[in-house]
Amino acid sequence: MSEEWVEEQKEELTDERILQLLEERQYKELKEELENNMYPVDLADILEGFEQKQMVMVFRLLAKEEAAETFAYMNSDLRELLINSLTDSELEEVMEEMYLDDTVDVLEEMPANVVDRLLMATDEEKRRQINLLLQYPDDSAGSVMNVDYIALRKEMTVAEAILKIRQVGLNRETIYTCYVTEKKKLIGQVDVKELLTTSESKLIEEIMETNMLYARTTDDQEDVAWTITKYGLIALPIVDHEMCMVGIVTVDDAMLVLQEETTEDISIMAGVHPSEESYFGTTVIEHVKSRIPWLLFLMLSATVTQMIMNSYESALAVMPQLAGFIPMLTGTGGNCGSQSSTLVIRGLAVEEIEFADILKVIWKEVRIAILISAALSVVNGIRIMLMGQGNATMAFTIGVTMACTIIIAKVVGCTLPLVAEKVGLDPAIMATPLISTLVDISTISVYFAIVSAVFAL
Amino acid sequence: MSEEWVEEQKEELTDERILQLLEERQYKELKEELENNMYPVDLADILEGFEQKQMVMVFRLLAKEEAAETFAYMNSDLRELLINSLTDSELEEVMEEMYLDDTVDVLEEMPANVVDRLLMATDEEKRRQINLLLQYPDDSAGSVMNVDYIALRKEMTVAEAILKIRQVGLNRETIYTCYVTEKKKLIGQVDVKELLTTSESKLIEEIMETNMLYARTTDDQEDVAWTITKYGLIALPIVDHEMCMVGIVTVDDAMLVLQEETTEDISIMAGVHPSEESYFGTTVIEHVKSRIPWLLFLMLSATVTQMIMNSYESALAVMPQLAGFIPMLTGTGGNCGSQSSTLVIRGLAVEEIEFADILKVIWKEVRIAILISAALSVVNGIRIMLMGQGNATMAFTIGVTMACTIIIAKVVGCTLPLVAEKVGLDPAIMATPLISTLVDISTISVYFAIVSAVFAL
Repeated sequence: MSEEWVEEQKEELTDERILQLLEERQYKELKEELENNMYPVDLADILEGFEQKQMVMVFRLLAKEEAAETFAYMNSDLRELLINSLTDSELEEVMEEMYLDDTVDVLEEMPANVVDRLLMATDEEKRRQINLLLQYPDDSAGSVMNVDYIALRKEMTVAEAILKIRQVGLNRETIYTCYVTEKKKLIGQVDVKELLTTSESKLIEEIMETNMLYARTTDDQEDVAWTITKYGLIALPIVDHEMCMVGIVTVDDAMLVLQEETTEDISIMAGVHPSEESYFGTTVIEHVKSRIPWLLFLMLSATVTQMIMNSYESALAVMPQLAGFIPMLTGTGGNCGSQSSTLVIRGLAVEEIEFADILKVIWKEVRIAILISAALSVVNGIRIMLMGQGNATMAFTIGVTMACTIIIAKVVGCTLPLVAEKVGLDPAIMATPLISTLVDISTISVYFAIVSAVFAL
Repeated sequence: MSEEWVEEQKEELTDERILQLLEERQYKELKEELENNMYPVDLADILEGFEQKQMVMVFRLLAKEEAAETFAYMNSDLRELLINSLTDSELEEVMEEMYLDDTVDVLEEMPANVVDRLLMATDEEKRRQINLLLQYPDDSAGSVMNVDYIALRKEMTVAEAILKIRQVGLNRETIYTCYVTEKKKLIGQVDVKELLTTSESKLIEEIMETNMLYARTTDDQEDVAWTITKYGLIALPIVDHEMCMVGIVTVDDAMLVLQEETTEDISIMAGVHPSEESYFGTTVIEHVKSRIPWLLFLMLSATVTQMIMNSYESALAVMPQLAGFIPMLTGTGGNCGSQSSTLVIRGLAVEEIEFADILKVIWKEVRIAILISAALSVVNGIRIMLMGQGNATMAFTIGVTMACTIIIAKVVGCTLPLVAEKVGLDPAIMATPLISTLVDISTISVYFAIVSAVFAL
């Protein structure tokens, strides 16, 4: 979608053009075009479609920085292929240019023998830092943080601070907020904006913000990302348990974390065990493994519905047309329940709803359910009469069943995610698949209880 | 969740404490605490729970800038209440401090008489700009962009550029990338990092990046947000159809756009018409209106299932236990279909999957479906035998039906979102509710076709 105008504004450097230049051995031309007309994230994408030989040739044409960045955007299969084709000195260059957080990401996905080779290509100081970062738990702030940031002292003047930024450099996000430390402890922060718009002779101490937000290395990466979104930050400082500054999480990493976590939530809501890999990056067997547990559980749960129906076998033998209404009733109930559960699950995720709101939510859903059930029952009653699927008694019976089903579905649908949150489960597991199975059971029970009373079966 | 440590690191300024200070008339103390210990986004949240009189009192204690920012974070009901309580001159101050993009957001949600009063409180130049912004279509880049940014000329030196930033100031995100324009046309961009780390006598022309990303005012805000995420940008310049620079979209706005769009996708996937309001901000009637269309459509679609079942009424009269398997079969089919459709819908949203991949996706899903159906059929067959719900023939029949159902469900589930994308519909409408209704119909058809053949009914 967004590709349209990204392409339009660049001189086309498509995969075909790259392959053509390679074939014609126009390496100088290709090298130039790669430098001027290609973003690393796009190149990584293109290289995935290339054969190993061509991929390595293109990679070797890249400037050091671009090579490191492109490498960071590759998927793990492609990275492994590439590592096995590079010489030790080439590998050293890539490892040298890569940011530490990217290096750690790469290492976490590689087989042991590749990790060994990568660590060999890294200097000792960096290796020490990598080992520290690898110790943070998955999904913690420590595991996604960047250890490069600008640290200032409170006795510095603004002019000295700007000089320090000049010397240290680093990449963009990491310089826009500077952190003031004293014996490694975080005591304040200064925006570069502040530095640029204040008199050069002022002391950092005078202009620094001392009441700032921060997170701990062990905090959940999702919480950190939400804080960055909520307060519109460029970066959030990360401290250890003694308030010593150890790194920052930048807004671009936060956006990727939120995107990953949303994908995870959506997968869980569809009854799929989430994976960090992409759809195509996951093998058939892994897909089966991640989907089958819920399917098995839900299929076996449906045994309850079946047992209830079997106990009404004689009623069905007398009035077989009763069965025809079942898919409509369970379908409507399931859909009503999933509407409520989905809205509540999302409300919890974006922190609009919390467990304390449970009564407010139920009261809202009950009123919604009453209005919806009235409308649907009437429409369905008319349909039954018009299509000659039953008389007024049948229309009324189905109407009452439907009303009960909708109210039960909405209440169950909105309550379960809240309860899950309260007891420390992920609310997303209370989405459609589970709700619709529970609603099936209650719908069938209510239906047969009502019809057997009305028709004296 | 993230609240935990946000609270921990601030001296507690809770709603109780604010109310207490108000009651004790300790206005000076309260004013100070509000200034030092409160973020506007949090205060807006707290004020929602206050009575009008107290809310207005607290608001009047805020410094101009904080007041404007807090106002921008309030929900529309609270804003209207506040506007009606402020004097004209107070309102003028707020309007003066607010960023233009926030002002436009506020205006779009207010009733006409309030809009009139707000525009009266705005100076003429700003009113002209507001009117321009209001003309961009909803959800376009123009409607979310910020018109404050730093424009440089290519003849400037780095020192002059830094001087210009000092003079213009503006807020954080808007200064970190500066844009080079010539007769209003965008011709390059310079990172503040570049300015800070280069010799002061260099010309902007020498250091500017000329091959940069941009978007047009009419581009979809979601595409703009994705570009900012994908390329890790702080801001993206927005140009009109003549390449004249008109504004920027900053990363903090991009994060909010992505969050909104995700909520919208998730709502649509649950068969709920999306709304821009929050769960509690939507009235019961509005909730009913946004949920009932799909419920009605799906309920009436279930008529097809019912007609198929009615045509097998005699079979059901002979073997009423056949009905008992229906919820399990349709449930499993629905869950299988929604797993596939959800993963494909998300893959489309994050731009991993596109229509051209359709055969690759179907082939993957077919293999997954075959493995899953083999496993589930065997488990279910064992269950049927163990629980005495049927003989080997019955177990075999249900197994074959289940296998067919799962394969159909997975293929339909993965195909429909791709087709929707191709024909320009939102793939999210092809989620669980619609898929499960379609799967119900095919499951019932297959089931009765098979059982009537096997049992000669």
